[in-house]
Amino acid sequence: MERIEGVTFSWPTRVYYEDTDAGGVVYHAQYLKFLERARTEWLRAAGLEQDRLAAEHGIVFAVTQADLRFVAPARFNDALCITVRPVAHGRVRIVFEQAVYKADATDEPLVTAHVEVACVSRERFRAAALPEFIVETLKL
Amino acid sequence: MERIEGVTFSWPTRVYYEDTDAGGVVYHAQYLKFLERARTEWLRAAGLEQDRLAAEHGIVFAVTQADLRFVAPARFNDALCITVRPVAHGRVRIVFEQAVYKADATDEPLVTAHVEVACVSRERFRAAALPEFIVETLKL
Amino acid sequence: MERIEGVTFSWPTRVYYEDTDAGGVVYHAQYLKFLERARTEWLRAAGLEQDRLAAEHGIVFAVTQADLRFVAPARFNDALCITVRPVAHGRVRIVFEQAVYKADATDEPLVTAHVEVACVSRERFRAAALPEFIVETLKL
Amino acid sequence: MERIEGVTFSWPTRVYYEDTDAGGVVYHAQYLKFLERARTEWLRAAGLEQDRLAAEHGIVFAVTQADLRFVAPARFNDALCITVRPVAHGRVRIVFEQAVYKADATDEPLVTAHVEVACVSRERFRAAALPEFIVETLKL
Repeated sequence: MERIEGVTFSWPTRVYYEDTDAGGVVYHAQYLKFLERARTEWLRAAGLEQDRLAAEHGIVFAVTQADLRFVAPARFNDALCITVRPVAHGRVRIVFEQAVYKADATDEPLVTAHVEVACVSRERFRAAALPEFIVETLKL
Repeated sequence: MERIEGVTFSWPTRVYYEDTDAGGVVYHAQYLKFLERARTEWLRAAGLEQDRLAAEHGIVFAVTQADLRFVAPARFNDALCITVRPVAHGRVRIVFEQAVYKADATDEPLVTAHVEVACVSRERFRAAALPEFIVETLKL
Repeated sequence: MERIEGVTFSWPTRVYYEDTDAGGVVYHAQYLKFLERARTEWLRAAGLEQDRLAAEHGIVFAVTQADLRFVAPARFNDALCITVRPVAHGRVRIVFEQAVYKADATDEPLVTAHVEVACVSRERFRAAALPEFIVETLKL
Repeated sequence: MERIEGVTFSWPTRVYYEDTDAGGVVYHAQYLKFLERARTEWLRAAGLEQDRLAAEHGIVFAVTQADLRFVAPARFNDALCITVRPVAHGRVRIVFEQAVYKADATDEPLVTAHVEVACVSRERFRAAALPEFIVETLKL
C-alpha cells in the first residue's frame, strides 16, 4: 500500500422517503449507497466513467471492506454532503476515508467510513491490477 | 393472449426495518419486490430456477407493466402473505394477478397488482418467445 | 376529481450501481423511487417542504395507485430525466402523469406512469382533506 | 463492556433480483439488510418482538458501528445462511459477530461483520439503558 495525499471531494445528496425507515431516520444501509454515489462522482470528476471502464477495460470496482461509524442520524428531507478522500492504494486496491454531513453543518459528521475497493475483472470477478491511468488519476 | 386457469400460489414474507419508511409504514416501492419474490418462488415451485434459465436458455424475465392499488399499509414486523396467479400468456408475455395480505387476514388485501412480464434475451434484452417447457408449466 | 392544466416539471437523476440488478439494467422497483424524487422536488419547487407539512400540518402523502409501463431499460451510469405533471385532484387525492427519460433523449420515454397520492394524517394514516394552500399551489 | 458467551443463531435468506447489481453479484449494501434480518429473528427467537419493544417500552435499536469484510460474492438465486452471535454488551450497547454464508458451504464466509447496536429512545433517538429483561435474554 502506498499512501496518497488525496484531495477531499464532496458530493451533495438529498434524503428522500426511500432512504428512511420506521425509526424516522435514514436506514443505516443507505449510507453505503450515499458513500458509493460520492466515489462514483469522484471518478467521474476525474474523467473516469465506470460504464466505459467495464466495456473498454473489462474492469469493475468491488467493495472489499467498509468500516462505518454511525454518529448521529440524518432525517427525511435533509440535504447531505458526502465526502471522499483517497488515502492509499496498492496494486489492486484503493482506500478511501469518507464521511456524511448535513449540508449546513460540515464540521460534525453523521457517519464516518473507511472503505476499500478492489479492481476486479468484470467477467470472473477476480482481482485485477489497477490500470496505470487510474493510478495516475489518483495521484492528481 | 390466451387465458389461463391459474392456481393461486402463496409465499410468506416478513416486514423488516429495511422495508419501512419514516411514515411508519412499508415504503410503496417495496411491494414490487415482495411481488417479485412470490413470482420467483412460484417459478421455483414449478421446477424453474431463473439462474439456470439465464445460463442454459439465455433468457430472463422483465416486468413490462405493473398496475398497483395500495389499499392499506403494512407495518414493521408484520408477517405478510404474497399471492401470485397466472391469468394469461402470449408468445412472449405472462400476465399475473397478485396481492399482498397480512398473514392473519387473508381476506382483506393490503395491495392488489396486475403484473405483466416478458421473456427477453439475456444478452440484448430483446423480446424472446417463451420456451415451450415454460408454457407447459403455466398450464399445470 | 377536478382536472388541472398542470405544467410539466423535470428533475434529473443518475443511475448508480444501487439502482441496477443482475440483468444489467435498472431494477424495476427503483423507478417508483425516481418518480417520488421528482414529485418531492416538484413540491419543493412550489415552496412545500414535506417535513414541515408533517410537523406543522400533521399530514403526509401516501401513494394509493401506480400504473407503470416499462418501455425500455435504463442502464448503469445513465443520466435520467424524470417528469411530473399534476392532471387532477379531489378533496384528498392528487393525480400525476409521470415519465422517465434518458437525459439526452427526452422524446422516447423509458417508463410512463399514472400515479395517485392521497393526503393522510401522519398519526393515524387516515385520509385527510388537502389543505387549501396545497390546492392553490396545484393550480399555479 | 461485558463479554458474553453467546450462542450462534442462524437465519436463512434467498438472493432475489432486488439484491443484485449490474456487476452480476449481490450489491454490497444489501448485506447490512441481511445481517439485520438475522438480528431481528434472533431477538424474535428469544421472545422479543421489536414492534412491542417500541410501543410498550419506547425503545428501538440503532446500529452505531458496522465493520464489514466482503470476502467473496453471493449471486442471484443463492440460498444464504446469516449467522449472529452476541459477544459483548454494555449499559446501552450490544456487540455482535455476524457472517454470511452460502447455505451449502457454511465453512467459508462470503461476508464477515462486527456490528454494534445501541438501545435508543424511540421519541428522541437518544441512548437509553438496555432493559433488564433484554440483558437477561442475552445471557441465555
